[in-house]
Amino acid sequence: MDFASDNAAGASRPILEALLATNNELCPAYGADRHTAEAEGALSAVFERDVASFLVATGTSANALALGALTPPWGAVFCHEHGHIIDDECGAPEMSSGGAKLVGIAGEIGKITPAALRETLARFPRGVVKQVQPAALCLSQATECGTIYTCAEIAELASIAHAAGVAVHMDGARFANALVALDCTPAEMTWEAGVDVLSFGATKNGALACEAVIFFDSGRGADFAYRRKRGGHTLSKGRFLGVQMCAYLKDDHWLDLARHANASAARLEEGLRRAPGVRLPWPRQVNELFAILPRRADAALKAAGARYYDWGARSLLPEQAPRDNEVFVRLICSFATKPADIDRFVAIVAESAMAA
Amino acid sequence: MDFASDNAAGASRPILEALLATNNELCPAYGADRHTAEAEGALSAVFERDVASFLVATGTSANALALGALTPPWGAVFCHEHGHIIDDECGAPEMSSGGAKLVGIAGEIGKITPAALRETLARFPRGVVKQVQPAALCLSQATECGTIYTCAEIAELASIAHAAGVAVHMDGARFANALVALDCTPAEMTWEAGVDVLSFGATKNGALACEAVIFFDSGRGADFAYRRKRGGHTLSKGRFLGVQMCAYLKDDHWLDLARHANASAARLEEGLRRAPGVRLPWPRQVNELFAILPRRADAALKAAGARYYDWGARSLLPEQAPRDNEVFVRLICSFATKPADIDRFVAIVAESAMAA
Amino acid sequence: MDFASDNAAGASRPILEALLATNNELCPAYGADRHTAEAEGALSAVFERDVASFLVATGTSANALALGALTPPWGAVFCHEHGHIIDDECGAPEMSSGGAKLVGIAGEIGKITPAALRETLARFPRGVVKQVQPAALCLSQATECGTIYTCAEIAELASIAHAAGVAVHMDGARFANALVALDCTPAEMTWEAGVDVLSFGATKNGALACEAVIFFDSGRGADFAYRRKRGGHTLSKGRFLGVQMCAYLKDDHWLDLARHANASAARLEEGLRRAPGVRLPWPRQVNELFAILPRRADAALKAAGARYYDWGARSLLPEQAPRDNEVFVRLICSFATKPADIDRFVAIVAESAMAA
Amino acid sequence: MDFASDNAAGASRPILEALLATNNELCPAYGADRHTAEAEGALSAVFERDVASFLVATGTSANALALGALTPPWGAVFCHEHGHIIDDECGAPEMSSGGAKLVGIAGEIGKITPAALRETLARFPRGVVKQVQPAALCLSQATECGTIYTCAEIAELASIAHAAGVAVHMDGARFANALVALDCTPAEMTWEAGVDVLSFGATKNGALACEAVIFFDSGRGADFAYRRKRGGHTLSKGRFLGVQMCAYLKDDHWLDLARHANASAARLEEGLRRAPGVRLPWPRQVNELFAILPRRADAALKAAGARYYDWGARSLLPEQAPRDNEVFVRLICSFATKPADIDRFVAIVAESAMAA
Repeated sequence: MDFASDNAAGASRPILEALLATNNELCPAYGADRHTAEAEGALSAVFERDVASFLVATGTSANALALGALTPPWGAVFCHEHGHIIDDECGAPEMSSGGAKLVGIAGEIGKITPAALRETLARFPRGVVKQVQPAALCLSQATECGTIYTCAEIAELASIAHAAGVAVHMDGARFANALVALDCTPAEMTWEAGVDVLSFGATKNGALACEAVIFFDSGRGADFAYRRKRGGHTLSKGRFLGVQMCAYLKDDHWLDLARHANASAARLEEGLRRAPGVRLPWPRQVNELFAILPRRADAALKAAGARYYDWGARSLLPEQAPRDNEVFVRLICSFATKPADIDRFVAIVAESAMAA
Repeated sequence: MDFASDNAAGASRPILEALLATNNELCPAYGADRHTAEAEGALSAVFERDVASFLVATGTSANALALGALTPPWGAVFCHEHGHIIDDECGAPEMSSGGAKLVGIAGEIGKITPAALRETLARFPRGVVKQVQPAALCLSQATECGTIYTCAEIAELASIAHAAGVAVHMDGARFANALVALDCTPAEMTWEAGVDVLSFGATKNGALACEAVIFFDSGRGADFAYRRKRGGHTLSKGRFLGVQMCAYLKDDHWLDLARHANASAARLEEGLRRAPGVRLPWPRQVNELFAILPRRADAALKAAGARYYDWGARSLLPEQAPRDNEVFVRLICSFATKPADIDRFVAIVAESAMAA
Repeated sequence: MDFASDNAAGASRPILEALLATNNELCPAYGADRHTAEAEGALSAVFERDVASFLVATGTSANALALGALTPPWGAVFCHEHGHIIDDECGAPEMSSGGAKLVGIAGEIGKITPAALRETLARFPRGVVKQVQPAALCLSQATECGTIYTCAEIAELASIAHAAGVAVHMDGARFANALVALDCTPAEMTWEAGVDVLSFGATKNGALACEAVIFFDSGRGADFAYRRKRGGHTLSKGRFLGVQMCAYLKDDHWLDLARHANASAARLEEGLRRAPGVRLPWPRQVNELFAILPRRADAALKAAGARYYDWGARSLLPEQAPRDNEVFVRLICSFATKPADIDRFVAIVAESAMAA
Repeated sequence: MDFASDNAAGASRPILEALLATNNELCPAYGADRHTAEAEGALSAVFERDVASFLVATGTSANALALGALTPPWGAVFCHEHGHIIDDECGAPEMSSGGAKLVGIAGEIGKITPAALRETLARFPRGVVKQVQPAALCLSQATECGTIYTCAEIAELASIAHAAGVAVHMDGARFANALVALDCTPAEMTWEAGVDVLSFGATKNGALACEAVIFFDSGRGADFAYRRKRGGHTLSKGRFLGVQMCAYLKDDHWLDLARHANASAARLEEGLRRAPGVRLPWPRQVNELFAILPRRADAALKAAGARYYDWGARSLLPEQAPRDNEVFVRLICSFATKPADIDRFVAIVAESAMAA
C-alpha cells in the first residue's frame, strides 16, 4: 500500500521489454543513436509540431535546464509559491540559470490566478536596473496540490506573461495525468495555449528515468545541447533514454498508464468519500488525492504498512485546517497501483471509524 | 564492428536481469530504497573502508560534482592537458564549482609526471590573492590515451599534491579496466595511494547509466547530497541506480566484464601487431588500443562498417605522427566485444595490406 | 532641495581634504598601503575588537560578498521581504553566492519580528535535501522604511538565528544613522548583540565611495580576500578607500555627519507635522522621513525643483494608504542637507495648503 | 623611487581638482548624473563613434564584466597564456561569465600571433557539444610584457577571430600608453581594427579609480547595466566616476599623462642601456621596462628604497634567462614619475657596477 509517491514503482512492462529487446544493439553514444532520433520524431508527432526535444533522466534537470534557457542570471522566474521548482529542487533552477531569482506567487490549491500574476508582474518593471528582470513563468500541470489548469486558463496566463515579455514554461512532471483528465490534445494543453517550453515527464508515469525538455519554437533550444552536456545530463548510453521514450509514447501507452493512475485515485476518492470522518478539502483531478483523516485511521493505516505523506496544513484554508484529532495527507496513485491496495486502504479507514 | 566507444553496448545480462527481478517492488523514492543502501554497503566492502558514496547516472556529473566539492570557486584544478574534464565535458566542472579554473599539465601518453606537477604547483603559490588557489588534482585512471598509473605513481603524485594542500580526485570512468590491468585491490589503487575522492564508473563497463562518487574520508562528502540534488542528479527512482550497482559489484561481475574488455583489446593488439603496415605507438594497457593504420586499411574497414575514432595526431610525439597515407585511430573494446568482430577487423586490415 | 537620496551629495570636506593631503604619496597597490592598514586598525578600535575588515567601493558589493561568505550555493538567506538585498540589488547576492535563495519575511515598517523569523525558519528544516538549507539572516540597520532595531531586538533575532545554525549579517548602509539614533556603541549594536558580519557603510554618510565588510570573528573572513578580488572589488589604488575610511572615522567625524543627517530629518519632520494635510504614518528614527503629502503640495514642490521618491503604497497598512489626492513619499536627508532647504520645503508645503 | 606599479601614485592634479570643483553639487545617484552623461559623450567623441560606455571603478571588473557579456557559460575565451585575465584576476572572468573557460595561447613577449590563434581556434570546432564553444578573444594593449600590437596586427587577429564567430575584447588597462606609442587614433586602434569591446583604463594613468567598458556596437551592451549592477559595480555616487572620466579626457589630458609615463620609461631605458652589466631583453614600447640587472645593482637599489617587481624568468627565452648573479625585473613608470627618481635609479645601478 504505497501512496507516498508515483516514483515508488519500477518501470511499466512495455518500457522494460523495450530495453530488453534493444539491449544487444550497438549504438552510437551520447544520444546519436536511432532510438533517440525516433523518440524525438515521436514527440513531434505527439505535439503535432516540429519540436526541439532533449531527453534527460530527471525532472529536476528538465526544469532547471529549461528555465536556465529562458532567463538571464538577472532574471525573475515566476511560479506558484509552493511550486516544485521553488520548494523542492534545492536551488537547482538558481544553479542552472546562474543565479536567477524565483518569485513565488500565492494562489489557492496550487494555482496561479491571472490577477495574482498581473500584480506580481507589476512589481517587476522592465528596465529598472536595480531589480531583476521578468523572464519566465512556470506553470505546474498538474500542480503540487493535484489540481490542473484548463487550456483556457493556461492561455490566459500565457497571454499575460507574453505581454510582459515573459516566456512560459510548463512543469509537466505529471503531464499525462493532467492531459487525460482534461481530455484534450498535447498541442492544446501546451503550445496552442501559449506554452513555450515543456518539461515532459515520463518517470512518474512508467519510465525508469526519462523526461524530455521540449521547445515548441525550436530556435529557442539552439544552445540547449550545451546546457545539458555542461550540466552532466547527457547520458553516454543515450539510447537508454531514447528506448524508454519510444516505448512510452508508442500506441498511446503513456495515456493508458495515466488513465490507470487517475482512475485509481478516483477509486480511492470514492472509497474515502463514503468513509466516516474523512474530509476531502480539494477536488481530485488527477492521480493525487488530499484527505483529512482521523488520527485513528492514520494510526491503523500505518500499522498496516501503508505509506503516504503527512502534508501538514500546507495550502489549506484556515477553516479547513486539520483539527487535533486529524491529519492532512497526500495520497498518490501511479500506473502500477493495484485496486486491491486501494480497497484495503479504504477498508482500514472505514474499520477504524467503526472501532471509534 | 564497433570499436568507437565502450558506451556502444547496452547493459550486461546480470545487470539487466537485476532490473527485471526487482521491477515489481515498490521502493521509497530519491535513493531511500534498500538497493541504494545495499550498493553503498557493497562499495564500502569493495574498498575495504567505510566510504561515503553517492550514485549518479553520468560520468560527467560524477566528475563535476566531485570536483565541485573539492575546490572553491577561486580554486585551481590540475589535470592532464588532454584530460576528459578539461577537454570533453563542455565546462561541467566549471559550472559545478562555480567557476574554478582547470589548469592543464602536459605529459606524454596522457600521464602527469611528478616533475610536471611540481612545476605547475609552483606557479600557483598559496595566498597570492590575484591568483586562483591550488585546490585539486584530477588523475584519470585509465587515461585518455589508454595508459595507467601504477599505484606507486599515484602515491607519489598524491603525496606532492597533499603537501601543497591539494586534494586528489581520480576520474575512474575506466576504473575497472585499470584495476584488472594492475591486478591490485581497489583500496591499493585509491585511498591507500592517497586518492581522496573517486568517480567510480560502471556505465562503460556494463551498466546502463550508473556511476558512484566515493569519498574515502566520509566527512568530505557532508554536503554532497545537496550538490547532487541541486545539480538535478538525484534520480527519483533511485533504485534504478542502486540495483545496477549491486548487480555490477556482485560476485566480481565488474571485474569479469573489465577482464573481457581488456582481453579483447589485447587480442586486437596481437592481431594488428602482426598486420603489415600497422604501427602501435603506445603500449596497450587497458581496453583501448591506439593504432596508426594505412589509409587503405582504414578505407576497407569503413567500407565494412567498422566504427572507431580518428584521433588526429593528438598526444603523439612528432616522430610518431601519421604520414600522409596513414591515419591514427582509437579502438575501444568493451565488456560486449565479440571475438569474431575483432578477428574480422584484423583480417580486413591484413587483407588490405595484401591487396596493396 | 534634494531629498531623493543620501547619495546625492559629494564627499564631506575632511574626507576630501584627506584625499588631497595624501595624493602625492606613492603607495603600494591593491590595499597593501599604510592608509588601508590604518583604516583596519581604526575599525578594530571603533568596534572594540580585533575585527577582520575589507574595504570596498559599493554597498551592493559589501552586502553581496558578505552574504556569499556566509551561505553555500544551496543556502537560504533570510531577509525582510522588502530588504535592499532582495529588492534593489539586481540579484547581486545570488551571483556572489553562486545561486543561494533569498527568502523574504513579511513585517511591518521594514522590520522582521522574532515570531516571523521563527515561523520562516521552521519551513526550512536542516537536512531535508530537496530544500535549500538555512544559512544567513540579513538585518538592515536602519531598514528600508527608516526604522531601526534596538540592540535587544537584534540580540533576540540573532539568538533565534544562531540556534538554527544561521549566521547574522547586518546591512549597515545607514549604520551611523542608526547608531546615533540609538545612542549606543558600535559594539553594542553589532557583535555584542550577535551580529557576525557587518556591511559598514560610509558612502551615504560622507564618503565618495567607501564601505567595509567587517567579520567580528576574523576566522570567518579567511577567504574573503579571494572573494573580493574575484568579484573585481579590490581597488588597484586601494589607498583611495583607506584614506577615506581613516578620515571618516577620525575624531568621530562619521558620528557628527550622521547626527547632522538625523537632525535634518527631525527638523523636516517637525515642519511637516505642523503642515496642514500632511500625514506621517511611521515614526521617524534616522535620516529618512516617510510622508503622505497632498497632491497639491507635491505639485508645488516639484515645480520648485524638489527631488524625492514616490513610494507608492509600499509597506503601508491598508488603512494608511494614500487617498486619490495624496501621494506617499520618501524624504532623505544627508550629512550635507542645508537647513534652508528644509525650511523652504516645509514652507512650500504649508503654502500649498493655504492656497487650497 | 617606485617603479613597482603605475598604481602607486594618487590622482593627477586636474582630476583631483575636478572632484573638488564639483563636490558641492547635488547629483542624482547611480550614474544618472550630468557628469556621467558628459563622460559618455566624451568617450563617443574620442572614439569618433556613438559608443555604449559604462563606467566602473576597477580594471578587473571592466574586463570580467565585458567578457561576461561576450561569452556564454559554455564559451571559450582566448587570451595570451600570461594575460592579466588568466593569471592575475583570481578567476574574475570565470565568475562573471558563469564559468567560461579561459584558454591561454603561447606567444613571445606577451603577444599572440595569427598562426597561434588559428591553431588554437582549430582545437575548438563549433558545434561539438562536448567542448566549450569559441566565444571571445582578449588582446591586452599594452601586453603584460609592455609590448604593443600594431593596428594592422590587431586587425589581422580580429579578422581571424571574427571569421570563427569570436568577438574581440581589448584589455586596455594601459590603453593610453599604447595609443601614444603607436601615435594613432583611438578609433584606429579599436573598432576600425575590429575590436568589439574595450576595457578603457584610466586608473593607472591618472585617475583614482575609473575605467570604462566600451561597446562599439552599442547593441551588444544592451544588458550591461544589469551585469554591472549585479556585480556590485554601479557606484551609488556615480558622479565620482563621471567627473574623473571627464577630467581625464578633457583637453587631451590623458594623452599628456601617458606621454609622460612613456617618456619616463624611455629615459630609464636610455640610462640603463648605458649602465654596465644591464641587459634589456625586450624592446621598450610603453611605460614598462624589463631589465636584467646584476644582483649587486639590485641590492644597492633596494638598499636605497627602490621598489619594483622581480619577474622571475617569466616569458624570457631560455637563452635570455638571468644568470645566477642577475635578476630579471619589471620597472614601471607612471604619469607621476619624477625625472630625478629615474636619474637616481640609473645612477645607483651605474655606481654599483663601478664598485664591483
